[in-house]
This record gives sequence, C-alpha cells and structure tokens, in this order.
Amino acid sequence: MAKRLGTRTIVFQNRPSIKGFAAVAGKKESQGPLAKYFDKTFEDTTLGQKTWERAEGLLQKEATLLSLKKAGLEIKDIDFIFAGDLLDQCISSMFGLKEMNVPFLGQFGACSTMAQTIILSSIMVESGIAKNAVAVTSSHFCSAERQYRFPLEYGGQRPPSAQWTVTGAGAIVIGESTKVLPYVEKAVVGKIVDLGVNDASNMGAVMAPAASESIKNFLIDTATTPEDYDLILTGDLGEIGSTLLIKLLEKESIKIKNKHKDCGLMIFQKDTQDVHSGGSGCGCSASTLCSIILQRVKNHELKNILFIATGALMSPTSFKQGETIPGIAHLVQIRS
Amino acid sequence: MAKRLGTRTIVFQNRPSIKGFAAVAGKKESQGPLAKYFDKTFEDTTLGQKTWERAEGLLQKEATLLSLKKAGLEIKDIDFIFAGDLLDQCISSMFGLKEMNVPFLGQFGACSTMAQTIILSSIMVESGIAKNAVAVTSSHFCSAERQYRFPLEYGGQRPPSAQWTVTGAGAIVIGESTKVLPYVEKAVVGKIVDLGVNDASNMGAVMAPAASESIKNFLIDTATTPEDYDLILTGDLGEIGSTLLIKLLEKESIKIKNKHKDCGLMIFQKDTQDVHSGGSGCGCSASTLCSIILQRVKNHELKNILFIATGALMSPTSFKQGETIPGIAHLVQIRS
Repeated sequence: MAKRLGTRTIVFQNRPSIKGFAAVAGKKESQGPLAKYFDKTFEDTTLGQKTWERAEGLLQKEATLLSLKKAGLEIKDIDFIFAGDLLDQCISSMFGLKEMNVPFLGQFGACSTMAQTIILSSIMVESGIAKNAVAVTSSHFCSAERQYRFPLEYGGQRPPSAQWTVTGAGAIVIGESTKVLPYVEKAVVGKIVDLGVNDASNMGAVMAPAASESIKNFLIDTATTPEDYDLILTGDLGEIGSTLLIKLLEKESIKIKNKHKDCGLMIFQKDTQDVHSGGSGCGCSASTLCSIILQRVKNHELKNILFIATGALMSPTSFKQGETIPGIAHLVQIRS
Repeated sequence: MAKRLGTRTIVFQNRPSIKGFAAVAGKKESQGPLAKYFDKTFEDTTLGQKTWERAEGLLQKEATLLSLKKAGLEIKDIDFIFAGDLLDQCISSMFGLKEMNVPFLGQFGACSTMAQTIILSSIMVESGIAKNAVAVTSSHFCSAERQYRFPLEYGGQRPPSAQWTVTGAGAIVIGESTKVLPYVEKAVVGKIVDLGVNDASNMGAVMAPAASESIKNFLIDTATTPEDYDLILTGDLGEIGSTLLIKLLEKESIKIKNKHKDCGLMIFQKDTQDVHSGGSGCGCSASTLCSIILQRVKNHELKNILFIATGALMSPTSFKQGETIPGIAHLVQIRS
C-alpha cells in the first residue's frame, strides 16, 4: 500500500514497474538529436489521415501498441488507459484509442499530462486495482498551433520566447513489480501556480514557478538534494523557462544546474532547427522520456531520475478573454 | 486494499466515505423540481463575473467550499482535488479552483466526469494516499452552448432531441471510513463506445449504449440484478437516451425500468420548462447526485444505489470535421 512522506510526496511501496515504453515522432523531430532513439518516425505528418486531429490520435495509438509489444503484452492485458492531449476535449486521445476497448480515463494537465498519467497508472497498480495500465499522451504541431495560436497558412511571426509544439507521442505500460525493470518510486501531484503571466508565447515563464514548487516540495519531503539524483528532467520549459527555474530554485538555495536537462531543449537542435525557446507540448516530454531517457534508465546509465512534466493552463477562450495563464507541474521519481 | 471482481468491477474494501457533499445551481434550475434540495442557487447566472467561464468556475468553488463546510473540514485537510468540466482545456475547473492551493488533477470525461472524479478520489483514499479528496464538476448553459453549438444571441432553434445544459456544480468530499456515512463500495470505469452517431443535438443516443455496457458489465461481475438496488441513476441521458437504455438492456434480459431514474429528467419540469429531451452537462448529474440523491442516501431512504454518469466525447472541431460522437459511462455504487 502506498504511503505519504512529508506534506505531499506519494511513496509507492510495491514498485510499479515500467514494463514497456515507446515513443513516436514527426518529421522535424526525426531530424533532431533524438532521431535514433524514437521507435518510429513519420515523414508525412498527416500520417495519411484527413485531419491533424486524426493524425495526432494515430500517434497515440502507435505509441501505445509499440509499448505493449515491447512489454510482451496485448491489449487484453491492459486494465486501464490514462490518456490526454492538448486539444479541446482531449479529442485526439479519444479518437486515437477508442477502438482499443479498454476502460478509459481522460486526463487534462496541459503539457504536464505525461507525469499525471504515470502517477495515476502507478496508483492503480500499487493499489492492486490494475495488473497493467497504460499512460499515454501526445501533441501535434499542426493541430496545436491552429487551435492555440494561428492557422498554419497565416505564417505568423513567432517571438523568440515562443516554443515549437512537438509532433509526437509517448506511452508507458506500468504493471505489477518485476524487480528487474525500472520502476516508479515516488511522486508529487502539482498545485496550480498563477503568477499573473498572460503571454501565450512565453510558456516557459508560466511553468517554471510550478516546476520550482513541486521540486522544492519533493526535496524537502524526502530530505534529499539534487546531488542525490542522476538527472532532474523538466518537461518543456525551453530555454527561458529552464533559466528561470534554475534561478528560482537558487533563491531557495537549491542548485540543480549540473543535474538539470529539459525535454524542450533536448528534442531539437537549437542552432539549426529554428525552434526559438525550444520544444513544447504533451508529446515533447512524453516522446523524450519514452525514448532516450527510459532507454538509459533501463540500461542503468541513469539509475535515479526525477521527471517533472510542466503544463500551462490556458484555453484559446481564456487567452482571448485576457485571463492569466496558471502553471502546474507533476513530479515522478523513476529508478532502476 | 481494493480488489477486482469479475472482469471490470473495482471493489473498495475500506469504505471510502462521503463526508460532505453540496450542490449549487442557476436560475432555471432553481425554478425546477429540485430547487429545495440545492445548497445554494444563483438568480444572476453571471454570478457577478465578467465571463461565463469565470461564472462556471465560481460554481465549482462554491460547491467545493460548501461540501467542505458540511464535512466539517477545511481546505488544508484536502490532499487532492479531481475536477473537470465541459469547456476547452477544463478551464472553469482550473480557474475556479486555482486559489485553493491543493494538488490538482484535471479530468475529462465530458458529462461522465462526476463519476470519474468520484472513482479516482475513492481510489486515493482506499489506497492510503489521501485522507480526504474532493470530486467536483460543473457545467454552465451559457459557456457550453456558445462553445458547442451556437452563440446565445443567435437564438438557434433547438430540435426536440436536444438537451438543456444545466448551470450547476456538485462536489463531494471523500475521506477515510467513518462507518456511519454513505460510502463508495464498487465502481466500473467505462470503455469508449462508438456506434456512429454524429448528431450533436442527440446526446442521449450517443450515451445510452455506453451506459448499457457499463451497467451490464457491473451486474455480471457482481452477479446481481436491478432488483438488488434501490435506484439506478443515469447521468443525463434525457428522455430519448433513457428510453434507448431501457430497450438496450431489455435485449440483454435486464429490466431496469422500475428502478431507473435519470438526472436529466429529474432536474427540470418537462411540461413547463421547455428543455426538450431533458437536462445535460457535467453539472446536471453532479448537482442532482449532490442534492436530493445523496441527501436520501444519507437519510437511508435510499440504501444502495448505482450512479452511472454518461459522457458524449466530441469537440467543436471534431463535430465540424464530421466525426462520429463516441460515448462513455462510468458507474459508481454508493451505499449507506
């Protein structure tokens, strides 16, 4: 049975195991530094579908099926799917996974959703309710940019603080302990943090305070320091958000700089791929975690990592109404 | 520790208790049959806010605070909030609850969300991770109609199969067993069911097959019949959906007619309130469950009920793209 440590940290005592994981990505991502780590990439980002939303749904389906294959499991072995995406009403998750015929729980945490689905899948396994659960999220540049910012055809100029929504998906099968596989050890569910930012082209500034809050809380609860971890991986803060996070934590005397990496900075080549502040989207942290990172955890190159997926809580409507953009960050500790 | 019964049913063994519950509603709902059961109603459905989205967020906040008060608890006693609504990116939940400073997990299951939040809150308590969790959802006629169908000012004619989105919210505090309060005993997480309906003005037809699937599965898993329950309460099937559900289950030799009620048919007076097929929206099942129904369960007038919240999985974009509308239904058994 899970227990709580300190004020907020969930401790899994039954070692919910990462039985399989897979990442799929689009063309631009296949030209970036993580190309060789993805399980599958698509030159044609329509994936042969008639809408971007369907293409994104197919990314989730592909990632889920590949993660099952790598786990040596079939759909019928899965008790629950926790899935989410950035689109209105999580429509890509619904359409991508509807044929799987598996009990489904739709999640929305913006770009923090991958950590959210991992936490809830782990709880299902830890509590004995599920033998296996799938955590999956996606994003797609074309469906997201049109919905949140401008139609692609408009060719809007992007400010330097903007991030590039990743076309990709990541899926993890979490199941009963195997003792040999990577496992989820602890987690912190984030609080909504609103410092009044209202620039939809500066998500890093929105999310950094939320990431700082969750990391700080976890380190206090567990009486550990950044030096105790091989890697502190944030979701998609990008360049501006990463710099802010490091500064915010330094104010609290927490130095993460030499342990920190950000999925948004890993997935694209800054100098040549013209993505300004870095990658973003649920699919950014999902596809980075489920490729190079978990491969290295499985190989014991990384034995103890913190994954902090960060989300900016806005809708196209709230943005037009002049509302601020709150952030949220969920943290997961993964070990091998 | 929770266990599984049959293929899909979750059995809570630690009696996660309903420590407090509250329902708030708008003007039209305050003129309907459930008026005297609501904890608070608002004559002015703007709730004094500058946008409908903010008004809806305030409904969630009010319901949450009232449920806490009735539970004799404060915000600081709550470990997690599971919340969702119908709006893009669950924006009313985010904005309504952001100041609560409580770990937050956004849920999306369309109008099935109330049952989804109850299930996940119960799991958090059952597994020992939470002492108390809040399950809360809302809908607002003005924010939903504008987003999904037409701007209110357009005055679009509504077909007879259309349902009226309820302005309301319901919140439940679920906590460690008290032995005397109503408790959550079992649950079924729904699968996505898509029979090809694509009429956004006929949600009952979308959701009835999903409700039928979850109810049938639960009865098989538990080896019970409708006669074993005091009430089988569906979320918001309305008149058309309720008729369909009864027929679908009759085909399986399951007769629920004399045990069945639907929140969408309870919340408005059909003859005088001009709501066509009935009420709908996350707030419909939430405010009905959290008023008259749970009051009766607490008083032991109803001792053993099934609550099946039903959702239609569509987005304004998917609808315009000609996609079908899948349904989903999550089931919760509540006893006293």
